[in-house]
Amino acid sequence: MSDALAPWNATLSLAEHSIIVYALSVAGLALFAFFVKSLVSTNEVSGRYRAGVYAGMTITGIAFLSYVLLVVEFALGYERRGDSWVPNANAILSWAPRYFDWTVTVPLLVIELLAVATLAGAAARRLRAVGIAAAFLMISTGFIGGVAVDSGTNTGALWLWGVISGVFMVILYVLVIYVVVKGGRDLAGTPAAATLRNAGILLIVTWLAYPIIFGLQGWGHGGAVITWMQVVLSAADIVAKVGFGSMIHKIAKLRSAEDVRAGVDTLPEALWISSEKLSDGVLPGTVAVDDTALSGRGERRVRR
Amino acid sequence: MSDALAPWNATLSLAEHSIIVYALSVAGLALFAFFVKSLVSTNEVSGRYRAGVYAGMTITGIAFLSYVLLVVEFALGYERRGDSWVPNANAILSWAPRYFDWTVTVPLLVIELLAVATLAGAAARRLRAVGIAAAFLMISTGFIGGVAVDSGTNTGALWLWGVISGVFMVILYVLVIYVVVKGGRDLAGTPAAATLRNAGILLIVTWLAYPIIFGLQGWGHGGAVITWMQVVLSAADIVAKVGFGSMIHKIAKLRSAEDVRAGVDTLPEALWISSEKLSDGVLPGTVAVDDTALSGRGERRVRR
Amino acid sequence: MSDALAPWNATLSLAEHSIIVYALSVAGLALFAFFVKSLVSTNEVSGRYRAGVYAGMTITGIAFLSYVLLVVEFALGYERRGDSWVPNANAILSWAPRYFDWTVTVPLLVIELLAVATLAGAAARRLRAVGIAAAFLMISTGFIGGVAVDSGTNTGALWLWGVISGVFMVILYVLVIYVVVKGGRDLAGTPAAATLRNAGILLIVTWLAYPIIFGLQGWGHGGAVITWMQVVLSAADIVAKVGFGSMIHKIAKLRSAEDVRAGVDTLPEALWISSEKLSDGVLPGTVAVDDTALSGRGERRVRR
Amino acid sequence: MSDALAPWNATLSLAEHSIIVYALSVAGLALFAFFVKSLVSTNEVSGRYRAGVYAGMTITGIAFLSYVLLVVEFALGYERRGDSWVPNANAILSWAPRYFDWTVTVPLLVIELLAVATLAGAAARRLRAVGIAAAFLMISTGFIGGVAVDSGTNTGALWLWGVISGVFMVILYVLVIYVVVKGGRDLAGTPAAATLRNAGILLIVTWLAYPIIFGLQGWGHGGAVITWMQVVLSAADIVAKVGFGSMIHKIAKLRSAEDVRAGVDTLPEALWISSEKLSDGVLPGTVAVDDTALSGRGERRVRR
Amino acid sequence: MSDALAPWNATLSLAEHSIIVYALSVAGLALFAFFVKSLVSTNEVSGRYRAGVYAGMTITGIAFLSYVLLVVEFALGYERRGDSWVPNANAILSWAPRYFDWTVTVPLLVIELLAVATLAGAAARRLRAVGIAAAFLMISTGFIGGVAVDSGTNTGALWLWGVISGVFMVILYVLVIYVVVKGGRDLAGTPAAATLRNAGILLIVTWLAYPIIFGLQGWGHGGAVITWMQVVLSAADIVAKVGFGSMIHKIAKLRSAEDVRAGVDTLPEALWISSEKLSDGVLPGTVAVDDTALSGRGERRVRR
Repeated sequence: MSDALAPWNATLSLAEHSIIVYALSVAGLALFAFFVKSLVSTNEVSGRYRAGVYAGMTITGIAFLSYVLLVVEFALGYERRGDSWVPNANAILSWAPRYFDWTVTVPLLVIELLAVATLAGAAARRLRAVGIAAAFLMISTGFIGGVAVDSGTNTGALWLWGVISGVFMVILYVLVIYVVVKGGRDLAGTPAAATLRNAGILLIVTWLAYPIIFGLQGWGHGGAVITWMQVVLSAADIVAKVGFGSMIHKIAKLRSAEDVRAGVDTLPEALWISSEKLSDGVLPGTVAVDDTALSGRGERRVRR
Repeated sequence: MSDALAPWNATLSLAEHSIIVYALSVAGLALFAFFVKSLVSTNEVSGRYRAGVYAGMTITGIAFLSYVLLVVEFALGYERRGDSWVPNANAILSWAPRYFDWTVTVPLLVIELLAVATLAGAAARRLRAVGIAAAFLMISTGFIGGVAVDSGTNTGALWLWGVISGVFMVILYVLVIYVVVKGGRDLAGTPAAATLRNAGILLIVTWLAYPIIFGLQGWGHGGAVITWMQVVLSAADIVAKVGFGSMIHKIAKLRSAEDVRAGVDTLPEALWISSEKLSDGVLPGTVAVDDTALSGRGERRVRR
Repeated sequence: MSDALAPWNATLSLAEHSIIVYALSVAGLALFAFFVKSLVSTNEVSGRYRAGVYAGMTITGIAFLSYVLLVVEFALGYERRGDSWVPNANAILSWAPRYFDWTVTVPLLVIELLAVATLAGAAARRLRAVGIAAAFLMISTGFIGGVAVDSGTNTGALWLWGVISGVFMVILYVLVIYVVVKGGRDLAGTPAAATLRNAGILLIVTWLAYPIIFGLQGWGHGGAVITWMQVVLSAADIVAKVGFGSMIHKIAKLRSAEDVRAGVDTLPEALWISSEKLSDGVLPGTVAVDDTALSGRGERRVRR
Repeated sequence: MSDALAPWNATLSLAEHSIIVYALSVAGLALFAFFVKSLVSTNEVSGRYRAGVYAGMTITGIAFLSYVLLVVEFALGYERRGDSWVPNANAILSWAPRYFDWTVTVPLLVIELLAVATLAGAAARRLRAVGIAAAFLMISTGFIGGVAVDSGTNTGALWLWGVISGVFMVILYVLVIYVVVKGGRDLAGTPAAATLRNAGILLIVTWLAYPIIFGLQGWGHGGAVITWMQVVLSAADIVAKVGFGSMIHKIAKLRSAEDVRAGVDTLPEALWISSEKLSDGVLPGTVAVDDTALSGRGERRVRR
Repeated sequence: MSDALAPWNATLSLAEHSIIVYALSVAGLALFAFFVKSLVSTNEVSGRYRAGVYAGMTITGIAFLSYVLLVVEFALGYERRGDSWVPNANAILSWAPRYFDWTVTVPLLVIELLAVATLAGAAARRLRAVGIAAAFLMISTGFIGGVAVDSGTNTGALWLWGVISGVFMVILYVLVIYVVVKGGRDLAGTPAAATLRNAGILLIVTWLAYPIIFGLQGWGHGGAVITWMQVVLSAADIVAKVGFGSMIHKIAKLRSAEDVRAGVDTLPEALWISSEKLSDGVLPGTVAVDDTALSGRGERRVRR
């Protein structure tokens, strides 16, 4: 079967080429910004919710690397001939790295959401295991149909694996909805509840873009189609990674502050959102060192 | 339509080529310095204003990446023939990445300004949303007319999209002026008021460079024109990102110190500007751990 | 002797090529995520167990660099001809860097395990020395037979050095089993015991993949064989480095919390796993500064 | 006018080529070491003097990037023919990046010196503004004559712009001497006074190398001349950036310790130089949280 | 004089080529691991000994960069012809960068050793100045004979500069022995004494490899010779940088703990080695803020 049908094998006009470079670069830079910001702001939430910040940080870090690769491969994968850009054998690599990224980042999105949700202990761990597995299988089966089999040009394989991938997507949707609904009930009356609901809606809506784009792959193949596909996916990645990550970070801050105010946890610095103070900084208690401490082996009692 | 009209398609003299490399490199290095400095100094302001430091950090980080790309593409985009540098098909990439950078950094500049301004809560969030949208649309519509349509050589498109972009610019100007005037009133009598006013003026004046350069694109196209365009934009980026960022950082320090002195917040280290002490270091209060703490599940009362 | 027998000299189909790039990239990104996360979370465990976090951090950092190299060399080592990818002289470099990585990371895995185990003092140091030596010799002798002699195509050398390498592997297995069994006894009744046992089992099972793949090298050489080899090793690296590292990190947290609760150590922030609190944050005691302190030479007594 | 006169257009012997690579690489690595060390040691001085550490960090970071560029361009700019290395059109880029670096780092050197000097408030800010302007103009005018006009081969332009640049250098010298003399008087009797004086002398002496090398550019042009120029400038950069930076860091530590001992500032860790203790660690006071703190809006009084 | 005599101009067999890549890569990765680990663990020793940790960090950082260069240049410097790898004009660059590294790292090794030794004040500074100078001169004179003069093929120059370099080596040996013997006496009875002695012996033995390899350069020149030279130097670099650095880090921890136990210094976290506690965490005293503190200008008394 020929490669000619794949969207990344369409010839691009100058404007289409410009717009794709623009979309890929802007997404890459936005992801970079969130990555660096997360890297230096892990201490603004308490340890209880910090896994959410770490997840957001690694998601955007990975996606940034993936977009660097996309930009480089897009530059190498098309050659200018007059007023057109003609794809070469590498053009598929300006598309496929999205799957590499998603295979790792979608499981991390599940971790990110659960880190600030209201499940705890074994229940949280069970749901997390299910979510990570579903997310991994959703992307890897999608990769088989969308890229691996006949370089993504086999419509039958596209549909078969698309359906299998879709089953795991349904599992993920159920999981996300369950977590958000439960969280909304458990956190009712706190500002975190509204943000959690919005984050859930954002995820559910944004994720719809991916199967639509996946399906489009089997249809039209002009330069305009691949241009739209790249622009929509770049925008979806910004929303699902940077926008969603910002919401998770906000929930983590709101819940950290709630814990500090309730005396459940301590945080040495005051928490603020939009110049409104959520909680004061509080230091933990001091240990009482007993007389044998200087020998380095003393037992200690907590002083209170 | 031919590319011949675009400024990046002018042949450069040796001196013009040298001066552009110089301008791009100096701007890149200055942005790098501010980025690294911000990365390690986030703890010098309190959490209330830290979003301003994060914004300055990510703005300069993104712009540094963009200038690395500009320098590399400028090296690849021109070929030496005798005493001239002749542009090739890549030359546009020594210009277009500025739009990639601005699309992310101008919205971040809005966040940076609002982080140290005097709006709070829903009002701050509303204004921020408007500002981010206006900034994004200002740059992306500018990109359509200035680069995407006919590679930026279509004077009609340049004017049409320039006007649309300009409308968003007016919205941004109104927003900045409103924030600065309100801040000046709210902070009246404090040193932060003067710095906020200066930062606002700096932004308003520097930003004028961008539409002027945008307009120039449709006019003259000798090597001298593109040289001036590159030099002015490099200088404007230094002023609007490093200079403005320094002012925002100063306001964040001044306001943090004011909060510490007023007992509204704590900061473990003393704040100084130009060897003058603004506030002493203050630790937060200590939590009182109750007797069940050792079991890891105890409720705690704040000791005071 | 010809290179033709080595698995990396098999011609790949398009799908095989895609799947190998996918496996290498996904492993690389997962390792990157764990590396960055470890880098910023070293303060979540007490100093006693932190060597385990450092080991996990450097293991994934090194493996990430190694996978970057594998991806680049895989791109350079095969050339597309029609619907096939034909290996060139560089193809061996899309395989050999695994040995460079393992030579450093397997000894570090020993350090990682011992850091959270229950051996202390001279006994710990002795076992660590033995384990590091066995791990280094296991990999370096494997490299001699699997890559260095006749570019890994000499079946006799493969078997000879494979057996020598296997002897060191047996030593490592004995060491791991001893540490895990002893740890299970010493920690009996704590949650750390179960996690330590699981981590040991995971290591023992995963490591079996490596000699199997090593042996396969002397057998079949179609594209399917090298594809399976690359996929299995990539998966094994994720499990043995990221999965195992997460378990070690969990043990380090559990044991840190146990120490804090027992008053043996302090940690300024509360420890949580899956939203369950393990220990409260506790500050250490304060030193009593005597009157000569201002001169900078005063002796001090610990205040308690 | 021909390029033949510029020093970077001389053919190099094998030994000259080796020595230049050696000088550039050693300088680059030394700058890297100071950069990384500064990056992680910013908390060893109090906030009052930390701008000096930041300046040293960014100066060496920028200069490291610049030397990476110099090494790469030196590799690309000369081609081996038998036992000689013959420059090509890129050879100027193994020289010109020094100006890119200096344009940013010399103003930062002014900030570095003033950060630990004894001026405060408006006087410090005024002097800093003058120093930054003079430093920027000194280098940028030097660049015009030394590189931009006729690729640095126009002896008339070299002299004209050299003299203009020299005027700004005189201003800088007066500034440095004023700051050092005033600092020597203000700090008389403290160890910081001697180090400040030595730092001033070191700067004044080292900076003399730059105009001498600048002047040499118009004279001799054999391989030996460019070799000496590269070696001397590399050495001068090490001394003026790493050596001077170490002195500034020492002054910052000495003055921080003095402030801690005098009760003007706090620093949580003891300061030591060469195993001699300068000051004990001191924590700041604790805020008294009033009863409304749990609501997150309470006013607080400092407890003392 | 021909280059044919230099060891880097010998043709390599496939196995020799593999082994050199292996040795260079393993050394590079081990150095990377130590660099990253040092970067995040600087707070585990007190400020008094931290210069030793910084030195170990920058030594391994620089050496890592150097090995990256060696690996890249080794890949570029040899070309495959049948079953051999034939050196080209760049082959010398897979050897010479070792000198760039050593010129900076050997002086840093002196700083590393002295940072944890028992000399203080002016005596320490004097010895450090002598050691840095001797180390720099030992390497730079070695570079002249071993690389610069006739590309290292002039046996007369090799011997002349080798002897000069050797004189500085003797000075370094005397210095190291003096420091270790004096340290052994001053620290007698503490665990730090034994580790310091071992570190000294390790340095003295490992350094012997370098002059031996240097001398070999003038003798045999087959592929086996350069292979051994590269392997031995890679191993020596691991031992002298990572092994020695680990010992210095251990001494720094042991002495920090001793200082904390003796009340000479404070460290907020407990120190442990191999699961044995060396010292408890201790906070410094709190400053007493007087009534004028809120104005930001108050004098303070230390509260005790």
